[in-house]
Amino acid sequence: MVKKSTNETMDNIISLAKRRGFIYPGSDVYGGLSGTWDYGPLGVALKRNIMQLWWKMFVDDREDMYGVDAAIIMNQKVWQASGHVDTFVDPLCEDTVNHRRFRTDHILKDAGVDAEGMTMEQMDAAIEEQGIKSPDGNPLSKSRTFNMMFTTHVGASSDATSVSYLRPETAQGIFTNYKNVVDNFYPDLPFGLAQQGKAFRNEIAPRDFIFRSREFEQMEIEYFVNPDEWEVSFDALLKDIHAYLEALGLPQDRIHELEVPEQDRAHYSKRTIDIEYDFPIGKEELLGLAYRTDFDLMNIQNNSAKSMEYTIKGTNTKFVPHVIEPSFGVERAVMAVMSAAYTEDEVNGEKRIVMKFPEHLAPVKYAVSPLLKNKPELVAKAREVYQILKKEHGAVMWDDNGNIGKRYRRQDEIGTPHCVVIDFETIEGDGTVTIRDRDTTEQRRVKITEL
Amino acid sequence: MVKKSTNETMDNIISLAKRRGFIYPGSDVYGGLSGTWDYGPLGVALKRNIMQLWWKMFVDDREDMYGVDAAIIMNQKVWQASGHVDTFVDPLCEDTVNHRRFRTDHILKDAGVDAEGMTMEQMDAAIEEQGIKSPDGNPLSKSRTFNMMFTTHVGASSDATSVSYLRPETAQGIFTNYKNVVDNFYPDLPFGLAQQGKAFRNEIAPRDFIFRSREFEQMEIEYFVNPDEWEVSFDALLKDIHAYLEALGLPQDRIHELEVPEQDRAHYSKRTIDIEYDFPIGKEELLGLAYRTDFDLMNIQNNSAKSMEYTIKGTNTKFVPHVIEPSFGVERAVMAVMSAAYTEDEVNGEKRIVMKFPEHLAPVKYAVSPLLKNKPELVAKAREVYQILKKEHGAVMWDDNGNIGKRYRRQDEIGTPHCVVIDFETIEGDGTVTIRDRDTTEQRRVKITEL
Repeated sequence: MVKKSTNETMDNIISLAKRRGFIYPGSDVYGGLSGTWDYGPLGVALKRNIMQLWWKMFVDDREDMYGVDAAIIMNQKVWQASGHVDTFVDPLCEDTVNHRRFRTDHILKDAGVDAEGMTMEQMDAAIEEQGIKSPDGNPLSKSRTFNMMFTTHVGASSDATSVSYLRPETAQGIFTNYKNVVDNFYPDLPFGLAQQGKAFRNEIAPRDFIFRSREFEQMEIEYFVNPDEWEVSFDALLKDIHAYLEALGLPQDRIHELEVPEQDRAHYSKRTIDIEYDFPIGKEELLGLAYRTDFDLMNIQNNSAKSMEYTIKGTNTKFVPHVIEPSFGVERAVMAVMSAAYTEDEVNGEKRIVMKFPEHLAPVKYAVSPLLKNKPELVAKAREVYQILKKEHGAVMWDDNGNIGKRYRRQDEIGTPHCVVIDFETIEGDGTVTIRDRDTTEQRRVKITEL
Repeated sequence: MVKKSTNETMDNIISLAKRRGFIYPGSDVYGGLSGTWDYGPLGVALKRNIMQLWWKMFVDDREDMYGVDAAIIMNQKVWQASGHVDTFVDPLCEDTVNHRRFRTDHILKDAGVDAEGMTMEQMDAAIEEQGIKSPDGNPLSKSRTFNMMFTTHVGASSDATSVSYLRPETAQGIFTNYKNVVDNFYPDLPFGLAQQGKAFRNEIAPRDFIFRSREFEQMEIEYFVNPDEWEVSFDALLKDIHAYLEALGLPQDRIHELEVPEQDRAHYSKRTIDIEYDFPIGKEELLGLAYRTDFDLMNIQNNSAKSMEYTIKGTNTKFVPHVIEPSFGVERAVMAVMSAAYTEDEVNGEKRIVMKFPEHLAPVKYAVSPLLKNKPELVAKAREVYQILKKEHGAVMWDDNGNIGKRYRRQDEIGTPHCVVIDFETIEGDGTVTIRDRDTTEQRRVKITEL
């Protein structure tokens, strides 16, 4: 068998996602809107399962975590204080003939130059030295900075005072609530605040399916620690992250820890590990774990004139806690899970595509079919089985469309672990049904009561 | 006992929400941002319970519903075609002295004039005739229209072609995916698409706590029907809505159906029922159920040039389905649940505040305490009980702060149904613990194994 190029696999997953109701291009009926994606019925189910598993493992099952859910639109001072207004920028250059705009670092990457860590001036110099042209073959302008936050205005006027932004990360919504939670609950250190929610970045060149989109969902934790004890928490969180990735069913050998070297880290970070994953588009960042020191809380303290100090209970020891941040992208998790599940194999000499989701993540757990849809007695019995399973598992699909082979192919493509078929033996014989396993395609007969 | 004014009750709920970690003013640490709210740990738990119950009852437990999750930022054509760009406006007038701006209908309402159904010209005339002044006592300008959608720009240019909006409702994200779902799943009519997600309205005068905020969350269904059979589905959905409200624990006698008369309905709607609720701020809309005919799908068909027709299986009968829309606001549901739960009563002659949440919605199900926190043997046993309950129920709180009376008051205020206390009888006597009921304050002794 010819090994597929990575892009071919990506294209196959994108195609399956659209064909089977996982993920559609956003605003598709009106010609789309680049960098936005809509989840269809199976995509919503998969995403919810991934997000709820995270919430369970990182919030509900723990006693050191507190959930929050901050507004997307915040006071502009949040983004001035955090540095995003000044520094959350990408370098942008322009085709001098047709005025199309590009990210300078992407232009360099596509030309085989690693722009990581380069200043804008260094990037421009590299383009000039190597004579790099725009994708349309024209000369490129010098770069300028472009802020990636979406801007809007709040209230009835449209001046500088009413400017606000769509948050480019959920993290600041957590930091701004740190004091509220300490005042209300006074948790012992270390403790974390966790949030799931949308974030937005005005990417100039969104690409790679849902990997780099303009609207996405994050799952972030800010974990507050005594600065003397940050290493213990850092190590513990790294272990927790791996436990979650294992629960997502991601193969160990596709997960890589990248210890980010000092010159590539944010200036305030004392240690950062990027967890990379072998996506079909290549090895790319799946999530990050960063020790951010007291950078964020000190920004808030300095700009709000409110103390962010924490007092150790029963003592006079006070300090601004340090922070460790595990930051997950939901779309990247969805994409990792989908690409880990995507399998092409052969059954009885016939090719098939099968999504080998872990059962607890599969959008549909059981499909129930009558062998023949024009036999009322089979349909009635199958409906009965369907209702029993639906009540038990929720995520159960009725499928009587096409012949059994077609149904199996369809259920394989959406990753349904179990297909149950009601046939004449069920109603005339011993009351057993056929249950087929997605991965082995093995069929067994079992009693309805044993399903 | 003196009956509280409604505003006093509202203020008490707002105060409790902040004091106990349910809901905080948004961007509070930077002086706030009007019309935005952040959920604290208990508010997140309550909101998640309310939203998950809806998803279970309206999606997971049904076979006629399909979940979707569309992007918040959509192609501008969506909002041109839907009519929002032209008509999603509020009338705005201005204090002619200090230039503060107000919603004209709110100015009228505050002056005791019902502006429902008035044109802007009629509102201006009413202000002139009755000599209504601004809240600061100055003359008011004539009104102009103000579009309530937040505007932003997508991509690297900021011209008319790059304009987009934050969705003011989730509904259009559903309609634009109607064809995707029909193509993928071809469900029988009637069927519904359901979505939960954020929506945004640039309210000139956000007010009444989370009732009218600039950022909020919706739970909407577009239910597609054969136009000849809309009444059956309308009635069935109304029944389902009442079942949900009952599951939220809202008292029957505070729920009112308002049959919206023709002159107050949207022009395309053939029937609308507003479900109103007796909030502390008065009787206000909790949710709506509207028969929208084929208005939305025809808009899409006309503007996208793509057919929205549905073909009845096995026939040549084709038509554009009609739509019934149950539309819920999450914040309004949260506010209804909180105000239904809010109770002031007396225990042994002492006043208390207690949130009588239904157990399945309560953010914390069990609180576990050692009678004395300085007795290691009590603490050790209590930790053991805590771990058992936490594993079983997730939402369990450890509480050893202050004396038992204080802990009960605190747990009452956050609505914890059961407080478990480990005392000397537990470790020296018969191994029983005290379990106290939130509503009756009755205490019983039960075996740990029977908890």
